Amino acid sequence: LKSEKAIGRLSLYRRLLQEQERHGAKNIYSHELAKLAGVTAAQLRRDIMAVGYLGRPNMGYNVIELQKSITHFLEDPQGDYGCLVGVGNLGRAILAYLLRRRPSLQIIAGFDVDPQKTNRVIQNCRCYPMEQMEKILRKHSIRVAILTVPASEAQKAADVLVRSGVRGIVNFAPVTLRVPEDVFVENIDMSMSLEKAAYFARKAAE
Amino acid sequence: LKSEKAIGRLSLYRRLLQEQERHGAKNIYSHELAKLAGVTAAQLRRDIMAVGYLGRPNMGYNVIELQKSITHFLEDPQGDYGCLVGVGNLGRAILAYLLRRRPSLQIIAGFDVDPQKTNRVIQNCRCYPMEQMEKILRKHSIRVAILTVPASEAQKAADVLVRSGVRGIVNFAPVTLRVPEDVFVENIDMSMSLEKAAYFARKAAE
Repeated sequence: LKSEKAIGRLSLYRRLLQEQERHGAKNIYSHELAKLAGVTAAQLRRDIMAVGYLGRPNMGYNVIELQKSITHFLEDPQGDYGCLVGVGNLGRAILAYLLRRRPSLQIIAGFDVDPQKTNRVIQNCRCYPMEQMEKILRKHSIRVAILTVPASEAQKAADVLVRSGVRGIVNFAPVTLRVPEDVFVENIDMSMSLEKAAYFARKAAE
Repeated sequence: LKSEKAIGRLSLYRRLLQEQERHGAKNIYSHELAKLAGVTAAQLRRDIMAVGYLGRPNMGYNVIELQKSITHFLEDPQGDYGCLVGVGNLGRAILAYLLRRRPSLQIIAGFDVDPQKTNRVIQNCRCYPMEQMEKILRKHSIRVAILTVPASEAQKAADVLVRSGVRGIVNFAPVTLRVPEDVFVENIDMSMSLEKAAYFARKAAE
């Protein structure tokens, strides 16, 4: 249970369980949760067994306990530290979004080339000049980075991140990053997502 | 060539071709482009044939002409209109990002419940109160929407979008939207992406 897809599924189950909890559900049957997640019930049960959830599935899963099991599997109980590279509009919006949702990943450092954005605290995150990136990342053992620099700067920034110990990158820059095999990159390309939505919307209207 | 995956691949090829153009390349061989995209050369050639590109693959694809062919296939030459629902930090950052990248999709209307954000123009986009959504969407035949409202408001907003003719939604709210089958939804869940990156970063460091 270490593939990218499996981890994505667990993350989705947890989100769906949160929704169920918000709607007041106490228990949920495996086939119900599977349907919400768009997977087979067999697949779901295998995933849930792998995280070590001990409930009795014939009673349905306990909505709160199963969230805890998944969280225990996915997250470091001590929390993780992350950084933001590129404190522009998008970067700042992401900081605000994460701060509101308070995930276990805390973004403790931001980096930017613009002196107006550095040496200050933005959305609870201290921002430093780009040149201090390697020093700060090493000092705090930061392993996760959000990359929101312009396309032309992304590879250079990724090289510094990797050299400084980062092993997980969420990349918003519309470029294909070249990184070593043990570095995980999740690409979020908003333009591509919009292109897809526009294409299928047009086809549906034809 | 109408599956979601196929359209995503075309969108990716085009982005990679833009990168090649920026780096000064005039031509690219199918196996090179396939490698950059992470697909087989046979898959790539099938995709390219389907968009009607007429170049001779033994010479390599012409980087500019192939972009044009893909654009012709993916986009309406007259451009598309889109809207933004939720003009908060994230919504405004997306507007700024799209305006800078000038895609063929023009975001011509924003909607928000907050009177401070409506009846004004933000990043070239006129913002209206939520109650005017259906009227404005119908008036401009808007078929694409970016959804950046809080989770608790997302389904309600999606219902209005669908009722008003929207058939493609890029959803940033961390909820599973219930929409009719002919409505395309692309979910961008930044928390989930970060969770994945944090998980693999930790595993790589172990």
